[in-house]
Amino acid sequence: MAETPEANVFSRTCPSRSVLLHLTGRWGCLVVTALAEGSLRFGDIRRRIEGISDRMLSQTLSQLERDGIVSRTVRCQLPPHVEYSLTALGKKIEPALDSLISLVEDNLPAVEKARKAYDDTHSRV
Amino acid sequence: MAETPEANVFSRTCPSRSVLLHLTGRWGCLVVTALAEGSLRFGDIRRRIEGISDRMLSQTLSQLERDGIVSRTVRCQLPPHVEYSLTALGKKIEPALDSLISLVEDNLPAVEKARKAYDDTHSRV
Repeated sequence: MAETPEANVFSRTCPSRSVLLHLTGRWGCLVVTALAEGSLRFGDIRRRIEGISDRMLSQTLSQLERDGIVSRTVRCQLPPHVEYSLTALGKKIEPALDSLISLVEDNLPAVEKARKAYDDTHSRV
Repeated sequence: MAETPEANVFSRTCPSRSVLLHLTGRWGCLVVTALAEGSLRFGDIRRRIEGISDRMLSQTLSQLERDGIVSRTVRCQLPPHVEYSLTALGKKIEPALDSLISLVEDNLPAVEKARKAYDDTHSRV
């Protein structure tokens, strides 16, 4: 039996790298975290994530749906509507993104101090 | 005393969003994780992260240095050389990225199954 090579995001050809990119990328992390609390409609997600365009949200949702992280459900009611939610796999991955976001938010003062120091040093030529 | 608004990555104007983007983005996540084991020189990082260009690595390192996540040290020896490592803040954030990468790698078979199912459905027009 052929051995399945282990997934390795550091390898150029491993498909896990594209999954990582969809989850992080420009918007993936925010979309997955926005869905943590339950199903949302397209417009709800767009309002939650300030600054995302319809095109980028739609592309991000399709990538995450294809990766099996987000599911898309058409509700047959009047008027019919579409809802997005995390799959079981999405729910498994979401906490890691949530921890990352909390760390970034909680440590923002330290980052801003570092940025100021960096800019002061690098403008002094 | 003016109240400091809480950091919120969902807000368009909050600087925490750019920090998140530098950490995730196309390469940030891989660079930070590559430095988890200790200091590395530029060429070491480039070899570790297959497919990254000199230009992208250099830009990613500068962004992370400015954010106070990576530090750059010039070793005054012959020949002199430059080393990159995680700061205390970088070490605090790295485990969240490492968890994310492990989740992505470990769940790759589920993602590949989902992709196949998605492609089968979406090509059947």
